[in-house]
Amino acid sequence: MTSRLELHPDRLFPAEPSVRAIARELYASVASLPIVSPHGHTDPAWFAANETFGNATDLLLVPDHYVFRMLYSQGVPMEALGVGQGGNPAFDPRAAWRLFATRYHLFRGTPSRMWLDWVFAEAFGIEVRLDAGTSDLYYDTITDKLATDAFRPRALFERYGIEVIATTESPLDSLEHHQSIRDSGWSGRVVTAYRPDPVVDPEFEGFRANLDTLSELTGEDCLSWSGYLAAHRKRRAFFASMGATSTDHGHPTAQTANLSRAEAEALFRTVVASAGTREGASCEDAELLRAQMLTEMAAMSLDDGLVMQIHPGSFRNHNAKVFERFGRDKGADIPMRTDYVQALKPLLDCYGNEAGLSIILFTLDESAYARELAPLAGHYPCLRLGPAWWFHDSPEGMRRFRRMTTETAGFYNTVGFNDDTRAFLSIPARHDVARRIDCGFLAELVAEHRIEDWEAAELAQDLAYNLVKQAYRL
Amino acid sequence: MTSRLELHPDRLFPAEPSVRAIARELYASVASLPIVSPHGHTDPAWFAANETFGNATDLLLVPDHYVFRMLYSQGVPMEALGVGQGGNPAFDPRAAWRLFATRYHLFRGTPSRMWLDWVFAEAFGIEVRLDAGTSDLYYDTITDKLATDAFRPRALFERYGIEVIATTESPLDSLEHHQSIRDSGWSGRVVTAYRPDPVVDPEFEGFRANLDTLSELTGEDCLSWSGYLAAHRKRRAFFASMGATSTDHGHPTAQTANLSRAEAEALFRTVVASAGTREGASCEDAELLRAQMLTEMAAMSLDDGLVMQIHPGSFRNHNAKVFERFGRDKGADIPMRTDYVQALKPLLDCYGNEAGLSIILFTLDESAYARELAPLAGHYPCLRLGPAWWFHDSPEGMRRFRRMTTETAGFYNTVGFNDDTRAFLSIPARHDVARRIDCGFLAELVAEHRIEDWEAAELAQDLAYNLVKQAYRL
Amino acid sequence: MTSRLELHPDRLFPAEPSVRAIARELYASVASLPIVSPHGHTDPAWFAANETFGNATDLLLVPDHYVFRMLYSQGVPMEALGVGQGGNPAFDPRAAWRLFATRYHLFRGTPSRMWLDWVFAEAFGIEVRLDAGTSDLYYDTITDKLATDAFRPRALFERYGIEVIATTESPLDSLEHHQSIRDSGWSGRVVTAYRPDPVVDPEFEGFRANLDTLSELTGEDCLSWSGYLAAHRKRRAFFASMGATSTDHGHPTAQTANLSRAEAEALFRTVVASAGTREGASCEDAELLRAQMLTEMAAMSLDDGLVMQIHPGSFRNHNAKVFERFGRDKGADIPMRTDYVQALKPLLDCYGNEAGLSIILFTLDESAYARELAPLAGHYPCLRLGPAWWFHDSPEGMRRFRRMTTETAGFYNTVGFNDDTRAFLSIPARHDVARRIDCGFLAELVAEHRIEDWEAAELAQDLAYNLVKQAYRL
Repeated sequence: MTSRLELHPDRLFPAEPSVRAIARELYASVASLPIVSPHGHTDPAWFAANETFGNATDLLLVPDHYVFRMLYSQGVPMEALGVGQGGNPAFDPRAAWRLFATRYHLFRGTPSRMWLDWVFAEAFGIEVRLDAGTSDLYYDTITDKLATDAFRPRALFERYGIEVIATTESPLDSLEHHQSIRDSGWSGRVVTAYRPDPVVDPEFEGFRANLDTLSELTGEDCLSWSGYLAAHRKRRAFFASMGATSTDHGHPTAQTANLSRAEAEALFRTVVASAGTREGASCEDAELLRAQMLTEMAAMSLDDGLVMQIHPGSFRNHNAKVFERFGRDKGADIPMRTDYVQALKPLLDCYGNEAGLSIILFTLDESAYARELAPLAGHYPCLRLGPAWWFHDSPEGMRRFRRMTTETAGFYNTVGFNDDTRAFLSIPARHDVARRIDCGFLAELVAEHRIEDWEAAELAQDLAYNLVKQAYRL
Repeated sequence: MTSRLELHPDRLFPAEPSVRAIARELYASVASLPIVSPHGHTDPAWFAANETFGNATDLLLVPDHYVFRMLYSQGVPMEALGVGQGGNPAFDPRAAWRLFATRYHLFRGTPSRMWLDWVFAEAFGIEVRLDAGTSDLYYDTITDKLATDAFRPRALFERYGIEVIATTESPLDSLEHHQSIRDSGWSGRVVTAYRPDPVVDPEFEGFRANLDTLSELTGEDCLSWSGYLAAHRKRRAFFASMGATSTDHGHPTAQTANLSRAEAEALFRTVVASAGTREGASCEDAELLRAQMLTEMAAMSLDDGLVMQIHPGSFRNHNAKVFERFGRDKGADIPMRTDYVQALKPLLDCYGNEAGLSIILFTLDESAYARELAPLAGHYPCLRLGPAWWFHDSPEGMRRFRRMTTETAGFYNTVGFNDDTRAFLSIPARHDVARRIDCGFLAELVAEHRIEDWEAAELAQDLAYNLVKQAYRL
Repeated sequence: MTSRLELHPDRLFPAEPSVRAIARELYASVASLPIVSPHGHTDPAWFAANETFGNATDLLLVPDHYVFRMLYSQGVPMEALGVGQGGNPAFDPRAAWRLFATRYHLFRGTPSRMWLDWVFAEAFGIEVRLDAGTSDLYYDTITDKLATDAFRPRALFERYGIEVIATTESPLDSLEHHQSIRDSGWSGRVVTAYRPDPVVDPEFEGFRANLDTLSELTGEDCLSWSGYLAAHRKRRAFFASMGATSTDHGHPTAQTANLSRAEAEALFRTVVASAGTREGASCEDAELLRAQMLTEMAAMSLDDGLVMQIHPGSFRNHNAKVFERFGRDKGADIPMRTDYVQALKPLLDCYGNEAGLSIILFTLDESAYARELAPLAGHYPCLRLGPAWWFHDSPEGMRRFRRMTTETAGFYNTVGFNDDTRAFLSIPARHDVARRIDCGFLAELVAEHRIEDWEAAELAQDLAYNLVKQAYRL
């Protein structure tokens, strides 16, 4: 027996009727605002080529580490789900989908379940729930629709009401797809963001070779400190010319440094030299270079106006065997305790009081919200708080974020929502969750007479639309 | 004036009427499911001998460190409550009970209060509240009933609907009581669990002598690394033959190690040698041996199928004077900040991807729920999350557990409830609290349209009964 | 268009009607209880001289770092708000007030907003909300009223129903204002508290010179360990004679130490010697002296009965440039992760079991509530938990405090509310928030049948009035 799939119009609103009524009204005023997506991982090639997506499994299962990590945690081999099976003729995407469908109950209570149900119901118009009995119906419906023009990337971009979306590229990227989009005359606004980890982090795969590529791209000698910094400036300018308004830094920690010119040069020389050896740079040197580069990037931001995003605290590729076999981004990144107070001080000592500088802080360590992040953002003019991130991009995660940051940092030191996703089809679902949760939170404040209803209405607009545009200078 | 003691049928359900109605219905479907108690500290001798318990004070006050720690914190000497007074003819249990009764208001808002009220009302049928005025009535009623056959351990076991209960024993235990239970022909299922701390932790009282005893018991040379490991294998096999399906590890930290054979042998040699001296093993060596032994235990679990439980993060016997005078487990164990991400990596590097291995993680550091534990359990096939534990085995603690783990790990990487108690009479009360809180949480999800009502009904059964049986292979 | 300012009688009560009804009734029973303010930073000179306060900006904006830190975080220069402008004839307080008024929306959802609205509505009788359009009306109304007798310090003290208030003074303070108050015959009870940081913390500005002053004041040789301790004893006795019932210790960490007499003497000698040099004492020595002094202070408290308050975990003056320019207490103190379990052990090993000793612990690290502080306070007779503090002195912060401490420590190991403020006019607002939140929390427990209604009524009185008087021996 199949069960009906229906998205309830009151979903995610607090249950208490008077609060729900307020939330419903606030939400109605923001539900159809355009989507501003300042930080994500969609592929610009999609919008450049505008080709149809593949089958259901290739689009929704294989690339979504939120989904396959849960299945893997319950004993399903990643190979059977299509991970690392590109070009393997023996791989059966329909069978993989069935493995997922029969285990869909594992996602009860997770945001993936909500996002996927939205995609199934709203994007594809499916009216029954996913389970073993409806697996093939799902696979066929989705795969068939994906072959139609209405499901090409640009059509979805427009249907989804996306005002602007940012992708994320390495300094080594040619941005050819962004160029193609511009050349095509299509009006969709797709911008890039500058993510220099591959040439900033000595522990990144291929760091040494990446420096050579950066030298070639820029005509600078990136094995010297001054050439290396000049190369960054050139690539940042190029990225900005392709619409970038921000940089993004995914370091293990939030550590910053404030070395003298001579110290920085010496450090860089050591790191470059050791990067050529089998052992690579020492952990300490790698950490110190990353730390110093955050401060250098802040200095460059003061010049070129790019907003900095700092995303620390993930132990990348924690599962050694999975990394060996399948590579990065396979659901095995695990958050770590993260300090901000000591870590950011060197950078803040230099530039913390510059109102022209804008740094958006993210965390995977919620214990820092009320203790460190809200107090920092509620004082330093250059700091803002990014939304609940990654594992915390969820109803409960967002509620904790608001409850733990608002009283010290206020709403106006936060920057609205970003989806941070490569799962393009789910983008409206993600923004919708954020809008519902924020409206629910505001409704609680109104119901407890902590703010007025007209203030909540203003805030709902700000949180859904205005703040993100201001914060990212979009 | 005495006040009435009545357990409200809606207790612990959320107050909002529509949510409460859902919670009530879910709870009705699980309230009378059998109790599966996979981890606890009841005494197998109770079920072997089936003798009556003593008086109210001896049963409910003296052994319950949750209770006497609170009284001690408010200035009542432990001696006056009977702690360490075994065999002291001057000790007056009725007077001790009165000290407790007159301070029963101290427990307002605590789980002990809820568990005790259940015991008073449901187990003993008392209809007035405990206070100074009813102290003697309580003492007499309880003491009198405890002398009756209906309050013998086996009768309570049956009346309580316990399907299976696990006790916890050291490898040095002969398991004679478990043997007696089996020999007696009684149908109650009481199994053991393998808790090797006394022979694994060089800082445990009597560690060196314990190794000798282990040698005697097994015929292995436990002063050699290979003999020591072989002895563990033998005792694990013996415990499994007496019904054990799990091991339990109460280390200060979650540190694991992955030493080479030669390194492990050398470490063990050093630890054994220093264990004979007055200073004992160094802190570092002790920590490393415990760490290595978790990995060794995981290897053995892969062979014999015992489920591992890791319970880290308690600073045992924090109060030096109380420990000196009264010994272990006197309410002076204090939780510490606990890292899992770095600590578990050596073990996970070896066995993390083995679907045949099952490791249940507990924590006293709630900041690890959303940051570390849910992400780990939501990826590694061998990991599951134990329920809110010890100080967090409480309504608010359970709510935080579900709110902080479900979105990343789902429900199916958790293992249901365990009571972890030596307070036998309160076992149904503890499971009842867990069932009520879980049903309330599910009801909130239904009311917010995050799951369907029929899903909540399935989950309620799973959380109350199915998951614990599967997770503990019972 | 101006909007009406009205304080809703149900503000801060939970929205669910049945819970709200209970909260309302509980609150009605405590709303007008006298205010006991055992820890704050009002200036005793106010009550001694009883002069009128200045203008709106001087009273409500310039000294309130909660307020100007938020404005500064959004780009308003501190100078423009009057910070550090004492005596600058070019500074225009009305213009500063306008900067604040036009940005009052930044405070939505913060406690400052609630406290200020109370001051505006209740203290000054203003009936429209603060915004750009009402800025001058506010400035004039407030400034005018402040010039009247009804707004002199003693009149407000009486109108506010303050039973007793404690200020905080350094051992170097002559307490002349306290003496004046006593001499004046006014019946208001204003007591001092002993805050020895300036002569205990080698990193405090002027530490070495402070020791000389202490020597002069006491006739002891404060450069010798024994003279230094004797001087503390003398000053404590003097403070006690001026009404002090407590000491207060604002250390960076909660570290305590238990050095031998010889070790302590040697440490003190080293610290004093290095305090005279340009480098000052080493970090380690400074930390160790602070740690040892907490234990020494506990020993003295056992003798003279003063209650100890420990307020650790703030990184003071995090913003180097702001500190250089404007000095201490300018909104740039940022909380840090704080350990209590290891840190307090040396002190607790000495005096932890002394029921005559009373130590009240505060934290800025909420992750310690359930993990460390509630378990410690729920065991050690000398420990009590101070209320949610500083950044956490807020509705959500107070709720987290109760939810995370009550189940392990109970209510009776907490000490009621203190306002910790120099913003004298807002004191009733702060106590009112605490009373409302506590009543709301109790109402939830009643609605969930976790306590009885008559128990909640007793607890409401205890939390609002009785506990603080007992805990501070007032």
